[in-house]
Amino acid sequence: MLARNRVIDTVRQVYESYGFVPLQTPAVEFLEVLSNSAGEEAQKQLFFVQTQDREALALRFDLTVPLARVIMQHPDLPRPFRRYQVSPVWRFDKPAKGRYREFTQFDIDAVGVESEVGDAEIIACMCDTLKALNVGPYQVRISSRALLNLLLDYAAIPQDRGIDVFRVLDKLEKIGIDNVRRELTTGYVYSGDNIRGVGLRTSQLERIEEFLAIRSNHRGDVLHQLRGLFEHVHGATEAIDVVERISTILDEMGCSDDQVVLDLSIARGLSYYTGPVFEAVLLDAPQFGSVFGGGRYDDLTLRFGGERIPATGASLGVDRLLDAMEHLGRLGTHKATARVLIANMDASLTLDYVTFARELREAGIPTELYLGMERSIGRQLKYADQCNVPLVLIYGSNEKANGTVTIKDMFAGRQQAVGTAKRGEWLATRSGQHLVPRHELVTSVRRLLDEINGVY
Amino acid sequence: MLARNRVIDTVRQVYESYGFVPLQTPAVEFLEVLSNSAGEEAQKQLFFVQTQDREALALRFDLTVPLARVIMQHPDLPRPFRRYQVSPVWRFDKPAKGRYREFTQFDIDAVGVESEVGDAEIIACMCDTLKALNVGPYQVRISSRALLNLLLDYAAIPQDRGIDVFRVLDKLEKIGIDNVRRELTTGYVYSGDNIRGVGLRTSQLERIEEFLAIRSNHRGDVLHQLRGLFEHVHGATEAIDVVERISTILDEMGCSDDQVVLDLSIARGLSYYTGPVFEAVLLDAPQFGSVFGGGRYDDLTLRFGGERIPATGASLGVDRLLDAMEHLGRLGTHKATARVLIANMDASLTLDYVTFARELREAGIPTELYLGMERSIGRQLKYADQCNVPLVLIYGSNEKANGTVTIKDMFAGRQQAVGTAKRGEWLATRSGQHLVPRHELVTSVRRLLDEINGVY
Repeated sequence: MLARNRVIDTVRQVYESYGFVPLQTPAVEFLEVLSNSAGEEAQKQLFFVQTQDREALALRFDLTVPLARVIMQHPDLPRPFRRYQVSPVWRFDKPAKGRYREFTQFDIDAVGVESEVGDAEIIACMCDTLKALNVGPYQVRISSRALLNLLLDYAAIPQDRGIDVFRVLDKLEKIGIDNVRRELTTGYVYSGDNIRGVGLRTSQLERIEEFLAIRSNHRGDVLHQLRGLFEHVHGATEAIDVVERISTILDEMGCSDDQVVLDLSIARGLSYYTGPVFEAVLLDAPQFGSVFGGGRYDDLTLRFGGERIPATGASLGVDRLLDAMEHLGRLGTHKATARVLIANMDASLTLDYVTFARELREAGIPTELYLGMERSIGRQLKYADQCNVPLVLIYGSNEKANGTVTIKDMFAGRQQAVGTAKRGEWLATRSGQHLVPRHELVTSVRRLLDEINGVY
Repeated sequence: MLARNRVIDTVRQVYESYGFVPLQTPAVEFLEVLSNSAGEEAQKQLFFVQTQDREALALRFDLTVPLARVIMQHPDLPRPFRRYQVSPVWRFDKPAKGRYREFTQFDIDAVGVESEVGDAEIIACMCDTLKALNVGPYQVRISSRALLNLLLDYAAIPQDRGIDVFRVLDKLEKIGIDNVRRELTTGYVYSGDNIRGVGLRTSQLERIEEFLAIRSNHRGDVLHQLRGLFEHVHGATEAIDVVERISTILDEMGCSDDQVVLDLSIARGLSYYTGPVFEAVLLDAPQFGSVFGGGRYDDLTLRFGGERIPATGASLGVDRLLDAMEHLGRLGTHKATARVLIANMDASLTLDYVTFARELREAGIPTELYLGMERSIGRQLKYADQCNVPLVLIYGSNEKANGTVTIKDMFAGRQQAVGTAKRGEWLATRSGQHLVPRHELVTSVRRLLDEINGVY
């Protein structure tokens, strides 16, 4: 949870640097709102909710549908409406590592933005987020529904069969090219299941493979080859120009070919995408799949019977990201918030312990006073160890007589005695409302913590 | 939401300064877990959840029951287990200002803590939280179930009728002493409803009123009068000593009589409290009721068939607190995260706009590039005003020719032109991975923002 909070704070800071504002929506929505927008798959995955009122309700399965509902319900919101939301969503799915029934999404969306600069900003924001999170090498992969539509024309596939084709292409990385071939044509048997084929002809499949064969680490190369392939397809120049402009803006935003590639196999199965689509993977942990997914969806509000409102956005899968970062050893292992545990050895010294705790806290050093059932110092040290608290203060009747406190460094195993005398130095407290004398203790603890941070 | 996030961050920082660690639990619990612990009232308020599995599930109605479930399920957790949790909970109740069906609680609890120092720490943490939130004058009111049990003996009321009596006393502030009198004796009619009476005799009521008459702003006075009243009640000395020790520790923790009062009318209706009970009110907004509630509950895990584990804690009602702070004008009114809006006047200057945005963001200044449908500068300024963004950058072909940008201060209504020349000064970016030249623009924007923060 500490690592999770740090990750969420970092993402929030990046999203806010782009001027996105926070939105919160309730977990429970009217079933009708969710059913209108959910595909068949999502319908099966709903968590239904019922109260004494017997209204038909369910838990949200993503953050995009509630956003569309808010947009329709509050026409007075500023346009563009650029919001972020970090919230749990629920899908009744088979749980696995990185896949949970309750999981957290952290979305950004720009609603009322037609310009491709908006798509480029979302992509740049994804890059900045992954950079700030220190996840190691990553790659944002982009493509476009417009390019895939050109492919349909090129391969003489009717536009209304597009979504079936894209859904198969989307599985390329997961099932491999051979199975994609089978699924696009006759279908095949997988683990005893009959996977139905899309029924394309060989000539159509060949043209799709020509398209998929366009791969390069340079966005310019991909665009050049696309212009060649689609030379005679109607509308190709305009569609490719849009992607090229996005690429140019990304250059200006500092997103080089290393971070953002044009990958034509990215289709994003969801039927609501209408333009550019994007996803992001951690290159050292590709087995976790994409941690970010997104794209342009200009027609979502139409499903609610509203006007067409262009929109683009991306969703970060927080739990999957955390699993991947943990796997990569990039999460940090702090389990404690307290930096100091005050051992509790002698009930008659309670007021001294309380004073130490107060002064350390007021000096900004998170401190726990041990209040458990164990009396022995050994077991209290064990507790500090179990909780990962780096320093323990030991103060009994001997120490009181000597005017000292023993500070034990749990990581190094060393200990040292410091004086408890007040130094007559004055320090403002957090609230700034009153002043307290500062113990020599505070200075020593702070110095030791600085040393520990330097080493670990 | 911006104010809410700030409040939550502040509370989190105070809780962590006491060494509490974060816990998260799922929103959905097995119905059985919730039913075991919910009173009759809570049962009626449940949001039931159903999936394809048809398991009996419901949304949590508080954070204490899930905590008890976690404690029982994970006997390997360190003891004491001192956790905080900030999460929504759901109760199907009649919504009103400050009372929502989905609302957020921010709890601290110390599980495995028998000592009254633990109760004192919770109270001190409540004080520190309200101080850090800058809510204005506040008061934490404490009492104890042990004192109320002495009252039962003193008034010759059987202990097993206690909870009925306490539930009525709890309403004192809300319904007034006359209705409390009626409800403790014969009952009365309220808005057409028949409120059943507890059936106490006049002599019993008189003794309760003697107890309630003990009021003072000095904890010492209250303790002194209590010792007098309960002089002949068995066990009174021990029970009053515990409260006195808490009071002494609170003195040492800097919680004076101004912040923490001993208020004998505080009963906290919940049946699971076993020792000290606490609540907190904002003195300038008493109509919002208590924003914090808590107390010691040593028997909760017994209900799960487990061992007795002593515990104490408090719950902050985030939504009620926010409503009260808003009413007091103490929430802040920022609606934007962006400090700068770059007006978008000329599509041919897109790459310049993108460069400005990037450099401002890299300098730590949240920036929005206007990407909406409006072309006119007037309407874009209106958008900035609506969104509360303090500065707008205006840059068209004239400015480009002159090598300047116009910065408009939306609050003061002034504008000034600054140069866009690069100053050859180098600045580390957020990631520290590369260096970028710094525009004179960045320096000017930062200076203006500093001025604005000084004034507003």
